[in-house]
Amino acid sequence: MTTYIFGHQNPDTDAISSAIIMADFEQQNGNQDAKAYRLGDVSPETQYALDYFKVSAPELLTDDLTDQDVILVDHNEFQQSAETIDKAVIKHVIDHHRIANFETAGPLYYRAEPVGCTATILYKMYKEEGYEIRPEIAGLMISAIISDSLLFKSPTCTTQDVNAAKALAEIAGVDLDAYGLDMLKAGASTADKTEEQLLDADAKSFSMGDYTVRIGQVNTVDIDEVFARQEALENAMNKASAENGYDIFVLAITDIINSDSKILVVGAETDAVAAAFDTKLENNTAFLPGVVSRKKQIVPPITAALTK
Amino acid sequence: MTTYIFGHQNPDTDAISSAIIMADFEQQNGNQDAKAYRLGDVSPETQYALDYFKVSAPELLTDDLTDQDVILVDHNEFQQSAETIDKAVIKHVIDHHRIANFETAGPLYYRAEPVGCTATILYKMYKEEGYEIRPEIAGLMISAIISDSLLFKSPTCTTQDVNAAKALAEIAGVDLDAYGLDMLKAGASTADKTEEQLLDADAKSFSMGDYTVRIGQVNTVDIDEVFARQEALENAMNKASAENGYDIFVLAITDIINSDSKILVVGAETDAVAAAFDTKLENNTAFLPGVVSRKKQIVPPITAALTK
Repeated sequence: MTTYIFGHQNPDTDAISSAIIMADFEQQNGNQDAKAYRLGDVSPETQYALDYFKVSAPELLTDDLTDQDVILVDHNEFQQSAETIDKAVIKHVIDHHRIANFETAGPLYYRAEPVGCTATILYKMYKEEGYEIRPEIAGLMISAIISDSLLFKSPTCTTQDVNAAKALAEIAGVDLDAYGLDMLKAGASTADKTEEQLLDADAKSFSMGDYTVRIGQVNTVDIDEVFARQEALENAMNKASAENGYDIFVLAITDIINSDSKILVVGAETDAVAAAFDTKLENNTAFLPGVVSRKKQIVPPITAALTK
Repeated sequence: MTTYIFGHQNPDTDAISSAIIMADFEQQNGNQDAKAYRLGDVSPETQYALDYFKVSAPELLTDDLTDQDVILVDHNEFQQSAETIDKAVIKHVIDHHRIANFETAGPLYYRAEPVGCTATILYKMYKEEGYEIRPEIAGLMISAIISDSLLFKSPTCTTQDVNAAKALAEIAGVDLDAYGLDMLKAGASTADKTEEQLLDADAKSFSMGDYTVRIGQVNTVDIDEVFARQEALENAMNKASAENGYDIFVLAITDIINSDSKILVVGAETDAVAAAFDTKLENNTAFLPGVVSRKKQIVPPITAALTK
């Protein structure tokens, strides 16, 4: 019987890589039926990593998981998982997120650690078991760590993530900074995307005080290239807000080279959003030096400003 | 700021011991503010273990946990935990049960493994970190493993539990079988308990088909001593069923020496309950050779019999 291994919907490089890595770990552990899957399209950044290390993308999951054995990586909340996850037999979870909307019928393996990347936990598991880390597996681990940490610049990055990447660089035979920048750049092209694609790619909704706040983030190597489309982006943000009931829409355009962000804000309480960062909006925008993490640097101050 | 460490309500030997052990682990890990607590009375079995290894019982938890750091051992479901657990900051969970009704606001450490006892996982953590296992800590680990596995006879017991106990016996300086039997006997006295205490101690309710089934379990070294009170027990079971809406009440009296059980059944479908074990009731009772685990040997056949 197949063991289905997969990361979250809208998969990023950690979700795809960790599924492939965990399938390899399970194979080395004697589980010949372990197989990696994906729950969505492979992003350009992830495709760059797969091509570089000559690894095929996992198959798109379409099977009904009722009574099937599954292993979840890089997520646990059912609404981020496969449609039939509530009917599956979850054997193991490897994750670095909070736990919510997750439930099993029986005992299982669950390993969560508050590090920057699921692949960092998988790296520790290989070391603990003494399993071989082949160069392409090391490459995928590195790619996931660089992606989640924006080349170690995100405040979510821990020394464990950095140390794992350094140790893996030798096995994979890559220069971390050079490879990492190339990979991030491959995923940071915005020219070929519609406004809707830019808004949707990584956006999440949050309840803050009386407001529903939508916060999206676009990684780029050229902030100006994105803001050349400011009017079209604002129109798309206003349309999405009207259709989905967002009171406020914040789009953070993050410069992955210099580790800064510029935000574009539409909707209610725009002054309060700017004040959350001790600044004022100019033409609906504000520059936020040193801000790269939505989770740690954008959501908390806006939450505080709107709920006081 | 104190780190509160505790096991589940109605604490058994694993819940109390694992809290003490985890507090020691955290201290060795540099967390000077780690402190073990308990959520209920210490059972006679657990008290025997604490006295034998000269360890004090943890303090009863009465503090409000709002915004406090906590570590959960041997449970995760909020309804089995402290009253204010939903307002606490859960930093770490060590457990061997299914996951349900559990949620955190942020990332955390979570380690679950499907072994027979939480203390077995803690033993592995000490080994991984190279921490010292003092004789009294080894003794508490052994006590928890013996308690959860009924001296290695429960089908929930894994080779990891057995191997951990064997390795720990040398450190603690005890003979596993002799100490284990003495500890289990200390907790298996039924003469000093009321019928209500015997029914309540470890009973759980289950939904099976159209029925609400209450299943209790009493450990003893003398099945006859318990059945001398059969009429009083039946009266108490019928009273509890009427008051709480149980359709069926099954009480398993488990002989911890010989690893057998005798069940007492009142309510609806009593023939179907007996048929689940390929036997018939005689005076509302049936002898079930080799049955010791409610989770693995009692609940599944009754569920199957009542839901087909």
